Amino acid sequence: MVGLGAQDESFSFQEFNLIRRIIDQLGVAAAQDIVVPPGDDAAVWAASSPGNLIVASVDAMMSGVHWLEGSESTMTSSDVGWRAVAASVSDIAAMGATPKMLLISLTIAEHTTSVFVDDLVQGITDACLFHEVKVAGGDIVKGSTNGISITVIGETDHHSDNQILRRNSANVGDIVVVTGRLGASAAGLSLLKSADEIDQSWEVLVRRHRRPDARVGLGRKALLAGARCAIDISDGLLQDLGHIASASEVDIEIMCDEVPLEPAAVALLGRSKALDLGLGGGEDFELALIFKEELLKEIERASDIEITVVGRVVEQLADEAMVRALDSSGEIYNPAIRGWDHGR
Amino acid sequence: MVGLGAQDESFSFQEFNLIRRIIDQLGVAAAQDIVVPPGDDAAVWAASSPGNLIVASVDAMMSGVHWLEGSESTMTSSDVGWRAVAASVSDIAAMGATPKMLLISLTIAEHTTSVFVDDLVQGITDACLFHEVKVAGGDIVKGSTNGISITVIGETDHHSDNQILRRNSANVGDIVVVTGRLGASAAGLSLLKSADEIDQSWEVLVRRHRRPDARVGLGRKALLAGARCAIDISDGLLQDLGHIASASEVDIEIMCDEVPLEPAAVALLGRSKALDLGLGGGEDFELALIFKEELLKEIERASDIEITVVGRVVEQLADEAMVRALDSSGEIYNPAIRGWDHGR
Repeated sequence: MVGLGAQDESFSFQEFNLIRRIIDQLGVAAAQDIVVPPGDDAAVWAASSPGNLIVASVDAMMSGVHWLEGSESTMTSSDVGWRAVAASVSDIAAMGATPKMLLISLTIAEHTTSVFVDDLVQGITDACLFHEVKVAGGDIVKGSTNGISITVIGETDHHSDNQILRRNSANVGDIVVVTGRLGASAAGLSLLKSADEIDQSWEVLVRRHRRPDARVGLGRKALLAGARCAIDISDGLLQDLGHIASASEVDIEIMCDEVPLEPAAVALLGRSKALDLGLGGGEDFELALIFKEELLKEIERASDIEITVVGRVVEQLADEAMVRALDSSGEIYNPAIRGWDHGR
Repeated sequence: MVGLGAQDESFSFQEFNLIRRIIDQLGVAAAQDIVVPPGDDAAVWAASSPGNLIVASVDAMMSGVHWLEGSESTMTSSDVGWRAVAASVSDIAAMGATPKMLLISLTIAEHTTSVFVDDLVQGITDACLFHEVKVAGGDIVKGSTNGISITVIGETDHHSDNQILRRNSANVGDIVVVTGRLGASAAGLSLLKSADEIDQSWEVLVRRHRRPDARVGLGRKALLAGARCAIDISDGLLQDLGHIASASEVDIEIMCDEVPLEPAAVALLGRSKALDLGLGGGEDFELALIFKEELLKEIERASDIEITVVGRVVEQLADEAMVRALDSSGEIYNPAIRGWDHGR
């Protein structure tokens, strides 16, 4: 039986009880109203409309790689749960699809306390409610470190004729637009690593590191307006645009002066460092959308978040497709960091 | 860059190259012909028929818990890949649904060789081809031990009116039927743990431990014939029937003499030990189906594998629903092992 709330109680592992308890804790974030809710061999549900396509992705986070525990920790296990959900739904949002159901695979290490697991589930619950997704199933196994892998299953929308935002649909002349403000999460992480106490004024940075909002909704609206190309830029703007460039066989030019930086990041680190984080820091879970300039007004109107034109798609110059960041004098700028390598 | 084939080359971790290489290695087992194949933010595909329901489940295996590496190992990493696929599709088969797509989340430890990963992917590929599923996506992260978590997404069949085999649909008077022969996998494991060399005659046991076949297809046929209740008995017959009993609020009686045991397991271990493994060993990835006796002939005809009546659903006697194994004189028999606890 799993202890409830006792601070130092070590986590005890009896799978059937545990799954039941997690489903209870998830409350309305568990998909109880579907054809077969969690608790059978598999979950079963109907698409919102019978003709919608199925959209699915998986994203994993491991302790020691994607977050730290103990004194070096920059986030609570509740934040880890939130981020894991945000990271997974962001991939579906980047397709212009609507995330619906999560399947959560937890690896729990021997030393883990029941408080850690309770908090993790709380963060998952909060993020599910915020992003309007539900947990349809999961699995829990013992391991040597804590880890969480979330599969998200969503659907396209027959209102947009089941169209999709893909990486391979950028055309020469298209503009490159990003959502929100970049560099906040990386600045928050750098702050948490270096400072013992954090002033209230940097709260936005810390929050974007710990509890990023995925941009669910905008992708679908951009699709309806006629956009066909997008990517989740959580590995860093330049690196992720590199996937667009390769898949679409184009080059992309980014105007450094146009990149919308989080003002608090600029205030904390100076414009030059903040720009580097905006170009390469990633982890903001913002989207880049690539479309014809004439769609901009309509997509701006449809969007409930700030979007900013940061660059343009140009012809591919060399054998390998390239993304170039250009400074105010049109010279190529090489930021100190280029992006997140999942293996680092 | 990941090394190719050099025996002692340590695995080097560059995610984008690695994912590309794994997709190449999967070959036709990668879902290349869907609307958006692996390689974008998410995979996208259409249900075989627009009205089919979505069926999904996730199942994880960790080194040190679900399999061992090194000198104590009873399976190769290729076997691990096969088993992970079989275990996941078995859950969909147990719903009477058809598994379609897999999303594979790999955790790879520092010490892991590229040969290990190549072999793991080979086992996944083989099992995908055998079970007629494809890999639609995945994620790879570093961890302190190797692990694999597979989400399988399938669909119901509008030919069977989108009906499902559930745990809560057993009725008093129904018969309990199992597929195949039980105890083979557990006998194979016990053999591999104790013997240095394994005689050809036990090959069936070793194979069922390393490369179990999931019973895809039969569940759907049973549904079409009118069955409404089933479970994957991979945690052990008695334990998994316990879930049916609880969910359906019934008791279940199993006649020990009727349980179809793998003859090689009986020859190796004697009938008594083999029976215990048949009742509690699990890991055979067989199914239990519970339905009205009058459906038996039709389901037998439809099945391309042996099915055996092993018991009956009876009224719930006490507050807690129970599964009773009965010996030839009708006495309750308590096997030495009751089933797999995922936390053990």
